[in-house]
Amino acid sequence: MKATFDDIPPSLQDLLPKWAHFCLYVERFISRELGVTLEGKRLVVGVSGGVDSTALLLALHYLSSRNNFEVTTVHLNHELRDSAAHDAAWVDKLSSHLKVPCIVKSENVSRLAQENSIGIEEAGRLARYTLFENVRTSEGANYVALGHHLDDLSEDVLMRLIRGTGWPGLSGMTGYDPKRQIIRPFLTLPKSTLIAFVKYLTISWCEDETNQDTSWTRNRVRNNLMPLVLNENPNFRESVARLWKIGQIEQDYWTVKTSEADQELSNDLLKDSHLALRLRLYKRSLDDLGPGQALAHTLFKLDEAWIEKKTGAVFQFPGEKTATITHSGVLFSTKH
Amino acid sequence: MKATFDDIPPSLQDLLPKWAHFCLYVERFISRELGVTLEGKRLVVGVSGGVDSTALLLALHYLSSRNNFEVTTVHLNHELRDSAAHDAAWVDKLSSHLKVPCIVKSENVSRLAQENSIGIEEAGRLARYTLFENVRTSEGANYVALGHHLDDLSEDVLMRLIRGTGWPGLSGMTGYDPKRQIIRPFLTLPKSTLIAFVKYLTISWCEDETNQDTSWTRNRVRNNLMPLVLNENPNFRESVARLWKIGQIEQDYWTVKTSEADQELSNDLLKDSHLALRLRLYKRSLDDLGPGQALAHTLFKLDEAWIEKKTGAVFQFPGEKTATITHSGVLFSTKH
Repeated sequence: MKATFDDIPPSLQDLLPKWAHFCLYVERFISRELGVTLEGKRLVVGVSGGVDSTALLLALHYLSSRNNFEVTTVHLNHELRDSAAHDAAWVDKLSSHLKVPCIVKSENVSRLAQENSIGIEEAGRLARYTLFENVRTSEGANYVALGHHLDDLSEDVLMRLIRGTGWPGLSGMTGYDPKRQIIRPFLTLPKSTLIAFVKYLTISWCEDETNQDTSWTRNRVRNNLMPLVLNENPNFRESVARLWKIGQIEQDYWTVKTSEADQELSNDLLKDSHLALRLRLYKRSLDDLGPGQALAHTLFKLDEAWIEKKTGAVFQFPGEKTATITHSGVLFSTKH
Repeated sequence: MKATFDDIPPSLQDLLPKWAHFCLYVERFISRELGVTLEGKRLVVGVSGGVDSTALLLALHYLSSRNNFEVTTVHLNHELRDSAAHDAAWVDKLSSHLKVPCIVKSENVSRLAQENSIGIEEAGRLARYTLFENVRTSEGANYVALGHHLDDLSEDVLMRLIRGTGWPGLSGMTGYDPKRQIIRPFLTLPKSTLIAFVKYLTISWCEDETNQDTSWTRNRVRNNLMPLVLNENPNFRESVARLWKIGQIEQDYWTVKTSEADQELSNDLLKDSHLALRLRLYKRSLDDLGPGQALAHTLFKLDEAWIEKKTGAVFQFPGEKTATITHSGVLFSTKH
């Protein structure tokens, strides 16, 4: 593939109004919907060389001088395909054309999968997120920006429903993850828009052949399930964007409402709380003790025991966590 | 089809322990999960003659003497199939064997669909629910019991996701609908259990051939989408039952939280409310004015205008409803 980037418009002012507006939409999404200020910050952008992350790199590049933030590209060579080294070189060359620093690392993802007895897909994700976090720290950067878009979000929501995720997790991946400082500026934009943007920029991105491999859950959802869903509702993705927005708002609502959660929930607090809030208080208290997902079923049982004042009753949760009904409320603890 | 019902065990005490427990599970579900007391009440049971509603009629029949409630069967002949008259006669005969009063009505559903420019499926639903409500009123009954089960609920959740339903509506149809006094005692039980129950009772139910017709959305979801979903997660239906339970709880939570909603929402109330609650207050105020679904997008716009104190700004909602930003808050009104 020929990779000359001489025809890429150099700055935001050089873009067609349509695509300048597109960049400004992304800017507004980051500040308004994600609540993230980029002014004076440093961003690490994960770039595979595919169309999504290429579009992200370019959009952020165009916004960077206007918003006074800096961008660093990071690319992981998964060592899974013959074209992997080519993709890495391509990302490096594009970054260099944009005068953006580029960090390329290599990891044998097949071996990582074997060593940890996990799937290749999960190993790849693990390796990427670890690298992003390492680079963010070592570069003194504030955020990691990833190219997930509305098509990804729609698949994610379907997969979460299938997997049995509750609300608001069901509304899809976060746009801003404060724990890992990840932002996803494209989350409510369809992939078709990103493709049109990169084509307009005259960039020939790298195709990811693994997207065609339907042995992976995501690709089965993408290739088999999604077409049936879109056949029923061609505007399904727009519905998902709405659901996502409501989910983000309600996630925040429950975070605020459960801020009183502690290792001990008093009878007074629980008595004043609706069952919906009590369940979220239990969950928050458990989550704050460390990893391990509480089963809804056990939370229901715990609440029944609290209502029936079964003092001394103990409930086990994943992550070696326990909840005990006491005279004064519910006590949460962990063996660690 | 031979229809002798002589081998049906006459009472709860005559059932195998497994199936007596099944009936008691249904009893508990109605009282605990739906919050409905059947003691001294009169129930109208919608029976098509299919396995679901046949199982429901039998389960309620077995529980009726123990719980001191009365059952009346109602059947609608849709005049869509050659076997329709046979099905009606079969339901009448089964009811008569159980000494349960049976009301059979006929309606030309094809014509109803044409006259109202709606689909056959929707016309059928409309005709059935109208009949159920009429019979409930004329018989002085308290509830209408319907045979929807966990397989129906799972399809319903998928269809709601596809259609773009928000939370908690996304968690599926209600188990108890206080407006129409409908209860769905089987909602968390898989169809396979109902089939096993009716087979155990030696009853040969009527097959509904329209279930095979994939030109209807529900049947496409059932026959094309659901197998793919179950292939990814064979326990998908159990996840849906959990999601449903949480949805019912949160529906109640928001109903309680928005009980202050009125035709005018004061600035004081709105200022003390999180965005999530404000959106639900707007929605409740609009819903209380009559039919017409408010679009999430317009609710977001309304809230932005309230934040920006755009006094005099007016927002239009379906059902000829409006919301106006005033000096003291947000005022909702309708032309009717």
